[in-house]
Amino acid sequence: MTHELETFFQPKIIAVVGASKDTRKIGHEALKNILISDYECEIFPINPKDKEILGLKCYKKVTDVPEKIDLVLISVPAVIVAQILRDCAQKKVKNVIIISSGFSEVGNHDLEAELVSIIKKSNMRVLGPNVMGYKNASIGLDASFAYGNPRKGNVALISQSGALGIGMIYLANNEFMGVSKIIGVGNKIDIDDDDLIDYFAQDTETKVVGLYIEAVKDGRAFMNSIKNCNKPVLVVKAGRSKAGARATASHTGSMAGSDKIYTAAIKQAGGIRCRDLVELFDMAKALAGQPPAQGNNIGIVTNGGGIGIMLTDACEEAGLNVPKLSPKTYKKIDKIIPDLVRPNNPVDLSADAGFFRYELATSALLEDPNIDGVIVASVHGGYARPEEFIGAILKMIRERKLHKEYKKPIIATWVGGREYEDLVLDLKAAGVPIYPSAWRTARSMLALYLEGKRIKKEKQKKKGNQYYFMDK
Amino acid sequence: MTHELETFFQPKIIAVVGASKDTRKIGHEALKNILISDYECEIFPINPKDKEILGLKCYKKVTDVPEKIDLVLISVPAVIVAQILRDCAQKKVKNVIIISSGFSEVGNHDLEAELVSIIKKSNMRVLGPNVMGYKNASIGLDASFAYGNPRKGNVALISQSGALGIGMIYLANNEFMGVSKIIGVGNKIDIDDDDLIDYFAQDTETKVVGLYIEAVKDGRAFMNSIKNCNKPVLVVKAGRSKAGARATASHTGSMAGSDKIYTAAIKQAGGIRCRDLVELFDMAKALAGQPPAQGNNIGIVTNGGGIGIMLTDACEEAGLNVPKLSPKTYKKIDKIIPDLVRPNNPVDLSADAGFFRYELATSALLEDPNIDGVIVASVHGGYARPEEFIGAILKMIRERKLHKEYKKPIIATWVGGREYEDLVLDLKAAGVPIYPSAWRTARSMLALYLEGKRIKKEKQKKKGNQYYFMDK
Repeated sequence: MTHELETFFQPKIIAVVGASKDTRKIGHEALKNILISDYECEIFPINPKDKEILGLKCYKKVTDVPEKIDLVLISVPAVIVAQILRDCAQKKVKNVIIISSGFSEVGNHDLEAELVSIIKKSNMRVLGPNVMGYKNASIGLDASFAYGNPRKGNVALISQSGALGIGMIYLANNEFMGVSKIIGVGNKIDIDDDDLIDYFAQDTETKVVGLYIEAVKDGRAFMNSIKNCNKPVLVVKAGRSKAGARATASHTGSMAGSDKIYTAAIKQAGGIRCRDLVELFDMAKALAGQPPAQGNNIGIVTNGGGIGIMLTDACEEAGLNVPKLSPKTYKKIDKIIPDLVRPNNPVDLSADAGFFRYELATSALLEDPNIDGVIVASVHGGYARPEEFIGAILKMIRERKLHKEYKKPIIATWVGGREYEDLVLDLKAAGVPIYPSAWRTARSMLALYLEGKRIKKEKQKKKGNQYYFMDK
Repeated sequence: MTHELETFFQPKIIAVVGASKDTRKIGHEALKNILISDYECEIFPINPKDKEILGLKCYKKVTDVPEKIDLVLISVPAVIVAQILRDCAQKKVKNVIIISSGFSEVGNHDLEAELVSIIKKSNMRVLGPNVMGYKNASIGLDASFAYGNPRKGNVALISQSGALGIGMIYLANNEFMGVSKIIGVGNKIDIDDDDLIDYFAQDTETKVVGLYIEAVKDGRAFMNSIKNCNKPVLVVKAGRSKAGARATASHTGSMAGSDKIYTAAIKQAGGIRCRDLVELFDMAKALAGQPPAQGNNIGIVTNGGGIGIMLTDACEEAGLNVPKLSPKTYKKIDKIIPDLVRPNNPVDLSADAGFFRYELATSALLEDPNIDGVIVASVHGGYARPEEFIGAILKMIRERKLHKEYKKPIIATWVGGREYEDLVLDLKAAGVPIYPSAWRTARSMLALYLEGKRIKKEKQKKKGNQYYFMDK
């Protein structure tokens, strides 16, 4: 069955109310972004003052457009938004994005209430107000006023803050993290986080869902959407502290709510609460690029003792386990490493470890049934060989696809200089999660473990349901 | 009074035992690094097999060198190190660095005990064994076998792990963090962390001391050296977890000890325990580049609500306070920001904030006696002006020097793309701490607050002492 929001995200006919020739206006930017999108659709600028904008025939009102409209973007002063929305309802428009701000976030609750009552009497789905719109990288449509496009990929991002949503696009590009859709939700008078999580759950282009939220309007619906989502859901819930909650109220006019309840509820629903945006991106990259871990036993391979110990500490602090090597794995690794060193987990390959030591040790850990995921580390010591470190990881990831028993996550970390930085970009571009700190590496591995747990639970639930039907 | 280790760090006459023509040997690298240092000294290669190495006259034994030697570097197999050390004692050498490994870290405790007994009977100060040596960036001397030099600056780094120490050099360079000295301490049979902290306390080129340690030999001496250090001391103590402690034992042959006791003792001594190396560098940059905060009340300036809330959360989680604006500051800021927004802390300057809004708001917070430090944030939204954000910070930092009431720390954070990345490098190169995550920013501000507290305590102590003498 097609999801209700399908025409919202893949509209064939779009109108922009408040479209303008003035390049300083948001309505100009929004129209231009749709126009320059690498996506085929019909576009209608709406503005009573112009006959033509950016080469397109301009209409005075939505109701003047001769075609059925899938999506209307509204960028006009707050006081006339209600009238435009009524026009949309009259025209039987399916979907609306209200970019305009000046509603509850600045105390104009009456204006916002009017919009809500119009929506209730219609069949429209409405995003906003006070939003940037969305960018659908899966199909190449930019239905936002913001400049810049994310690389196409598998992470869907939802942001209650527009500016932050735009910042997230650049951050994603910097980190070579591919995005399916990114959407601002603003004041959430109709389309809410739960609707979007539901949509992304069935969106074949999305593997991971990430949210920045300041407040949730319908807690039960939100938690249910996470619970029912067959994909990992990462949540940054801001406004944790008292002062943060105060700032939330003035930012989006919403109540932050009890923080402890959020933490517990997100966890219970099977979502992962992230410390901040950086952690959300770290975890999203791991989840989008790597298979989940089937348990919390982690193997660590390193060319430096210090970084190995810091990783071990960080893993255990994150709730992961760094077990002793099994006798079989011990023997395998004993053959690889120099005589002076004894095998351990973290596996210290010694400072001059090259391609083969890294490859053989990582393989040994991947083959070990007691190990659920591997962290590969390198420190830029005097004898480090960064190309061989990177090369070994890329080979292991390639080979993993061929072997069933290799279906375990591999993530990486390093401490080093410019020579490494360039190679690290290669890994990122290839979709391998690599992080510049022990803490971030461990937390990302934790996300892979939690995802493994979530999937197991989901399978059990499905099994349970089958039995239930059989009993009938 | 000259510190005992002065000739160790500024030797005029150096010998390298195990110097070699073979470019694959550590003894070759060590000799070469001293030779190519931008530092005037006499160098004597020692090797019974050669007459000349790298253009320098070679001697068979330390005792053959016609001059008094300030520092000997030893890079020979572990089994003959004791004999060389005896030669050094006989020659009345003041300082020795034993680069060679193969001692307690691989279970050869007897070999190491022999070295200890030789040292006890001599007046020598000995670093190592199992170390990289040191790089004294303050004077340009590289007395290590590792390749690469840090930029000159004010952070002294001590690393129990050699490879990690080298990695730290590159990390420092990447981050534009200047270093005074970086030194590996290895098995610490004589020169220990406390000796070095004492030395850096009186070193005019050092403003901040950072340590990576796995174990401490003399806990009381270590804590006393931190207590007596008139500079901030940052500690990464690895081997926190059970598995980490196991790994520590196999890395440097040392016991990690009770982690809780370390945390409490470091805190009591006035040091700061860092989560990992990244945090150590974050905090070191803040402490080296900014004045300490006189209290924990933090003002936040931002062009995006979301990032402001995340910073507020992170500050409060770190034990800092984000107070409401005083009436006076509220009025000042009300004049700067657009009508739609109301002043708050975090101060949301709105998406299109440029140079003047940033400058005026930051000034207002710096002038407010209820604010002890300012975090300036920018998100790469549609209307962000990165150059003006960076420009305003640089101007505020410059002006702060002229005004007494401005002597408060300013640190920065951003979420954005390549356009920002390049500008962020400008800030880093200018010594302004800027961090890519709310959490890291808040933790670095915490370090500035703790440093303010430490200084106050130190002053009180001094005052106390004065009274004591007056009573006499």
